[in-house]
Formats: sequence, C-alpha cells, structure tokens
Amino acid sequence: MKVGVFDSGIGGLTVVKSLLQHQLFEEIIYFGDTARVPYGSKDKNTIIRYGIEAVEFFKNFKLDMLIVACNTVSAYALSEMQEAANCPVIGVVEAGVLATQNALTNKNANILIIGTNATINSQAYEKGLKDLDFQNLQAKATPLFVPLVEEEIFDGAIVKESFKHYFQKLTHPDALILGCTHFPLLASSLQNYFGQETQLIHSGDAIVEYLEKTFDFQTKYTNPSLQFFASENPDALRLIAKRWLDV
Amino acid sequence: MKVGVFDSGIGGLTVVKSLLQHQLFEEIIYFGDTARVPYGSKDKNTIIRYGIEAVEFFKNFKLDMLIVACNTVSAYALSEMQEAANCPVIGVVEAGVLATQNALTNKNANILIIGTNATINSQAYEKGLKDLDFQNLQAKATPLFVPLVEEEIFDGAIVKESFKHYFQKLTHPDALILGCTHFPLLASSLQNYFGQETQLIHSGDAIVEYLEKTFDFQTKYTNPSLQFFASENPDALRLIAKRWLDV
Repeated sequence: MKVGVFDSGIGGLTVVKSLLQHQLFEEIIYFGDTARVPYGSKDKNTIIRYGIEAVEFFKNFKLDMLIVACNTVSAYALSEMQEAANCPVIGVVEAGVLATQNALTNKNANILIIGTNATINSQAYEKGLKDLDFQNLQAKATPLFVPLVEEEIFDGAIVKESFKHYFQKLTHPDALILGCTHFPLLASSLQNYFGQETQLIHSGDAIVEYLEKTFDFQTKYTNPSLQFFASENPDALRLIAKRWLDV
Repeated sequence: MKVGVFDSGIGGLTVVKSLLQHQLFEEIIYFGDTARVPYGSKDKNTIIRYGIEAVEFFKNFKLDMLIVACNTVSAYALSEMQEAANCPVIGVVEAGVLATQNALTNKNANILIIGTNATINSQAYEKGLKDLDFQNLQAKATPLFVPLVEEEIFDGAIVKESFKHYFQKLTHPDALILGCTHFPLLASSLQNYFGQETQLIHSGDAIVEYLEKTFDFQTKYTNPSLQFFASENPDALRLIAKRWLDV
C-alpha cells in the first residue's frame, strides 16, 4: 500500500516515525507545506483551501490512503479533503479520539486537550469525545509550544514557565491529548509536570492503532520507500527527516 | 501622498502607528499577508516571491511610495521589490541602520541586533552598520518573541526566562536594534532587562526619521484615509488595527 502523509510543516514526521516503527506501508510520500506553515493561527477558510490544494498535490501519486498528520487540518478540513480526494483520507483527530477511548475505562476521567489556537477553537476533539460519552473535558490552546519545539527547546526554565502559564489554573488531568504533531517532543517534560499517572495520547501512535483496527494489513514492510516533498526548501525537510527518523 | 505599508502579518501596524503620529501621509494602505505569516522562518526564495507578489497587489493603488515594514522582507527582498515596483520602495532595515547611526556618537558602541531567524541569517543589519564603520556588533535570532507578542505576553516569568535564554551569554549592549515589527511591544521589558542606559532602536520611528530626512513633506495630514487588506480574515486585522491604532 502507498500512503501519503500531509502536514503543514515538519511536525508530521512524528507520525511517519510511528508508521515506520509498525512497518505498515510499502511506500510513504510526505508533503509539508513549509512555505505557509504554521496553520494553527490561520482561519478556517484558509485551512480548508490549503487542505484541498494538498489533495490535488497527492493526486500525482495514485495513493491508496492519505493521512492528515496535522491536527489543525484534521479539525477543519477533513470532510472537504475527503470529498476532493479519490482515496480514503484519515485524520489524526478522529484517531486520537478513539485512542483516548481505548486508553480510558472511566467515562468520568478528566481529559485535557492541548493544541494550536485553531485546533482548540474548532472543538473537534470535544465533539468526538462527547459522542463517546466523555464529559469531563478541558481544552487549552498552547501556541507557544510549536515555536519552542521548532527551536528544539524541550525542557528547562522557559518550558516550565510556559506550562505554569497555561496549566496552573486547570484541574489535574487523567489523560492529556497531545493535539499537535509537535507536542510529542515535549512529552517527557509534560509527563514530569503532570506526573506519571496522567496518560499521554500521541497522534502518531493513535493513527497506527486506528489503521490496524480499520484496515487489514497482511504484510510487514521492513524497508519501505520514502519520499519527502515540501512547498519550500525540501532539502531542509529531508535533512530533518534523516535526523528524526534515522533513515 | 499615498503610501503602501506591507508586512507579513499584523506587526507592521507598529510602523503605521509611527506614520500616523507624524501625520506624513494623506492616504495609508496596509497589506498584511496573514494567510502565509510568519516569514521569519522561511527561506530566501520564498520571501522574495512573496515580496514581489505584494508589489503586484499594491499596483492596484498607484502608490507614491511603498514601505516594507517587515524586517525579514526588507532584509531579503528589497532590491527585487524595487525592481518590480513603479514607485520608491523603502525598507525598515535601511532606516534602522541610519537611525542607529544617528543615535550613537561612538563607533565602538556595542550594538545588539535581534530579529527572526531569517533576518539574523541575512546579516543585513551587520552589513549596513559595518559600512558605517560600526564594528562592535552582536546579532541574535529570538524567534520566540513573535509568538509571545502574538499571545500578548509582554512581561512576566516566560518573557524573563526567554531573555535569559537568548541574552545571558552576550556582552551588555549600548544599543539594541528591535529588528522585527513585533518587538516594540516588548520594549518596556527589554529596557528593564538591559537597563536604562541601553538605547532601543524601533523600526517605526526609524522609518519616520528616514522619510523626513529623505523626502520633502510640506503638509501635515491630521485625518488621513486608512485602508486595511489581508490575505486572510481582513476583518480580524481591521479589529486589531482599531485597537492598536485607536482609529
């Protein structure tokens, strides 16, 4: 199977990492819209337009499946992209909601969703979780986390003060949904801040869990073909991919 | 005179504020490329392409002058924009360099330039300052400052820790060039951090100083016409303009 992975920038590589670890695909084609990143501060219509443009880009490749790694795009543009595409289009939000359900037995568990402004404003995670009868939800936009990760600041005083800034008035969560592909890189600091009893839900792992439940993967591909595209400076993206994915 | 002001997003409104205070123009037309902001992490070719597209946009208005409020665009795309335009195109970097010269009598003064990754990598300020015989230069990319300002976090613990993160290993500067239109909103915190003896150079004021020296403004316009355009969500930009500029 040939899969496309779309993200606004480089964050979706954390999803590719999970796909590689589970050896699900023969061919992975990644496209990051690095010339227009980030999407998280942009508005709904712009995000939908960019999502449909990404579908058009992937039509060059006759995909079997397209994964939307970006939470912001998944939250706002998934149905429009599904309509425009001629293959299944799967978003991380949907997968994250189901992964949360699998991780929690108690419907009264307190779930904290963090993401970009756009993702949090969309209330996409809340809608999905409420449909599954989770009621005890908190959502918090944490836009500083993206630039922190992009500067490779994963711990230390600024990170700690940012956590305090965003979280100190919230109820302690039983589960934390990392609603942005950048956030797994802060996972260890977040786990320290909230304590070991808080379960972290990671988009990449959630997608794999979702795919394995939904589709019938009969072969493991230990050496898949990988291609990386970007709307600007694809060489920079390829270098980062090499480093993050060890490929 | 009719002037265009171009910025990657909303930051250039700090330049418009200075223009309004000095009543130089009869008509001000602002365009923020909010659908593709920020530029500071993008590469040279992309920034040049976006700069030329902005020139094309402004051709609808028969401008007398175009001001590039964005430091990143001024640093990378000014000559290409000047070539594409049919009016003078003036950048904040050029103006900031001359304002620094006017502010400092001592050529050995230590000057610290802060800006986005792209602006700092361009070394545009250093080149200009070295041509004026300033040799004692430090430059530091401070990409976290833009999202801090966009979240309206202007002081407090995160800001202080960010200052430490970026500045604690640097020599104390006699002058600090705020090489990004967002940074004037951190001016008061920066002044506190470095102390009153450090002179802050602000793009908006620098542009006014440059214009008044270079052109002959004979009339003061107390009630100029203002128009705001954006590549996404112009209403949001207009609301912020209303609030920041009190118009």
